[in-house]
Amino acid sequence: VAPEPLTLSGLRTPALLLDRQRLVRNVDRLSRRLRELGTPLRPHLKTAKCLEVVRLMAGGWPAPVTVSTLREAEAAAGWGARDILYAVGLAPAKTPDVMALRSQGVDLSVVTDDLEAARAIGSAAAGQGLPVLIEVDADGHRSGIAPEEPERLLAVARALAEAGCEMRGIMTHAGESYGAAGPAELRACAERERSAALEAARVLRSAGFACPVVSVGSTPTSLFAESLQGVTEVRNGVYAFFDLEMAGLGVCAVDDIALSVLATVIGRQSAKGWILVDAGWMALSCDRGRGGRPVDNGYGLVCDPDGAPYPDLIVLRANQEHGVLALRPGSAAELPPLQVGDRVRILPNHACATAAQHSRYHVTQPGRDAVTDVWERFGGW
Amino acid sequence: VAPEPLTLSGLRTPALLLDRQRLVRNVDRLSRRLRELGTPLRPHLKTAKCLEVVRLMAGGWPAPVTVSTLREAEAAAGWGARDILYAVGLAPAKTPDVMALRSQGVDLSVVTDDLEAARAIGSAAAGQGLPVLIEVDADGHRSGIAPEEPERLLAVARALAEAGCEMRGIMTHAGESYGAAGPAELRACAERERSAALEAARVLRSAGFACPVVSVGSTPTSLFAESLQGVTEVRNGVYAFFDLEMAGLGVCAVDDIALSVLATVIGRQSAKGWILVDAGWMALSCDRGRGGRPVDNGYGLVCDPDGAPYPDLIVLRANQEHGVLALRPGSAAELPPLQVGDRVRILPNHACATAAQHSRYHVTQPGRDAVTDVWERFGGW
Repeated sequence: VAPEPLTLSGLRTPALLLDRQRLVRNVDRLSRRLRELGTPLRPHLKTAKCLEVVRLMAGGWPAPVTVSTLREAEAAAGWGARDILYAVGLAPAKTPDVMALRSQGVDLSVVTDDLEAARAIGSAAAGQGLPVLIEVDADGHRSGIAPEEPERLLAVARALAEAGCEMRGIMTHAGESYGAAGPAELRACAERERSAALEAARVLRSAGFACPVVSVGSTPTSLFAESLQGVTEVRNGVYAFFDLEMAGLGVCAVDDIALSVLATVIGRQSAKGWILVDAGWMALSCDRGRGGRPVDNGYGLVCDPDGAPYPDLIVLRANQEHGVLALRPGSAAELPPLQVGDRVRILPNHACATAAQHSRYHVTQPGRDAVTDVWERFGGW
Repeated sequence: VAPEPLTLSGLRTPALLLDRQRLVRNVDRLSRRLRELGTPLRPHLKTAKCLEVVRLMAGGWPAPVTVSTLREAEAAAGWGARDILYAVGLAPAKTPDVMALRSQGVDLSVVTDDLEAARAIGSAAAGQGLPVLIEVDADGHRSGIAPEEPERLLAVARALAEAGCEMRGIMTHAGESYGAAGPAELRACAERERSAALEAARVLRSAGFACPVVSVGSTPTSLFAESLQGVTEVRNGVYAFFDLEMAGLGVCAVDDIALSVLATVIGRQSAKGWILVDAGWMALSCDRGRGGRPVDNGYGLVCDPDGAPYPDLIVLRANQEHGVLALRPGSAAELPPLQVGDRVRILPNHACATAAQHSRYHVTQPGRDAVTDVWERFGGW
């Protein structure tokens, strides 16, 4: 007997839903913009960790991809990818695993921003031409060498060259753009990211390093960049799903968010205005968003089963397997008359974190009860 | 050729470590205390989600266990458990899956606090004597019926009886104890949990419901209770691992924490006093702790590879696969001279959340490089 087809109403909750129509729209939006700007995309696997999604993002498969872990690199290689950028500073002890993937014909390139690391990686790669990008710090967010420190940049480049690595280029990530306020600041972040990348490439090229790759990427900057001249690729992940963080930043609308968690009402505390559901932080993640935004979404924004948000209804508190729904403090809205057994969809603060709590996507279409596809995702390192 | 034995120094990072000596000590501490108080433990599977750990907690196997999801119930049944309490309010649509486990000979009991839910569950269970506990609200934390609302309690009990369910008893969880300050408040929380449970049982018994089970449990209250008279079982999970939340609450010492994340230094931002490691929120969880504690541990407290904390070194910021180590703001301590490639252990804010980011425990012994065991854990619903 064939198994019964999966339906939304038949899914055991909590379950992760992916709205295919929104996903495709989000993917098309960035593709169109990057075509206008003339810069190719190297989609980032870290958000979706799923072949079907990355294939949509890339517009075909195999395609160049970005990864944040060796496990992602190994998965992508297993799916046939032959051009992979591992965009997190390499721990030197991981070099043999990188070389093992390269020996299978995968052009896996790695990243560092540290002189000692460059020497250790170079030594472990034993002169076999491992391609390395130097990480550039565009905005003080995290890692990378600021272009204002050309000696540090050049010292790392020389160490790599001396060790027989290939100086593939530079990469940067404008992480501070997640804290920008409004389109003007987002455009400024994008231009700062581009100019930091180009300045670092200029320093390296002036010293004789070819630096063919100039890689930038953050979802806010890629969507708000007015020019990507001189940039050879952009890396993006979360734009395919979007989330309340991106909506709060003005990068997308709430109804662009393709990812949600389906939950069931399990009880009420009427005197407190609370509705209890079977999705807690285990299903939603502990990510409460960045804070400091004008609108607090708690652990997520609550929608009806078709995905339309209830006014001001948020996940106020989350325990491991309990979510407490309530109106935003101070709201004049009315608590919807949800009954035990009713279902809701919860939009996530941070799609990367929420998706990571699940092992598969249930792919949906607006207005249909059918789960049209189940796409597996993976975790681990 | 036999595979090389796993070692700490050979593990790919980030990796989840479990110190067996601390685990056993923590497990023994609660067992001893509960023996003194004369109340049996029904260990909670939700923290460890691992057979080897729950077997240690129970002091043998099979044993009665507590679960927070159907998936945990199915896993426990698969390991041979025959007495399982599913301690999260049941969504009525899950009743057939509950009955399917019961039909395999598992005494699986469920929980509700809602009249409609009781009717719907009773109807779905079709008079087959499904054992149900009524959830009691001891402290306004989350779900449950307060003992001060005897009519609500009795209405649910009557609906269950009319539907042919077995009124197995009551359960409560003193969740507010996680916000207690000091031993006196913890003892008061424990007594409030016990008295709320006993009062609810008294109400039900006065109305003719036998109410054989009086189940309480939270790690702080179980360890600080001075009496459990009248309580028939306690449910605990996180006490086996402990975490910075429990240490901040005074329930354990930092060196009781059995769980940690092994990470590798991948870079430094010397001017800022930052050390970058390859463990971000994906490996640590987004749980920043409850807040309001005198000591802020960021995303975790950083230790040397043997597990001794560096003074005031915390995970200040976390991106998906990057952790930024820095001294606590205002600290007079010195940044340890960590170099790229060096390893650290990071103690978690919340063991349940951190463990959930991983698929296995690497079991360690103090002072040894060997990983003595690898214990699998599961996720999902």
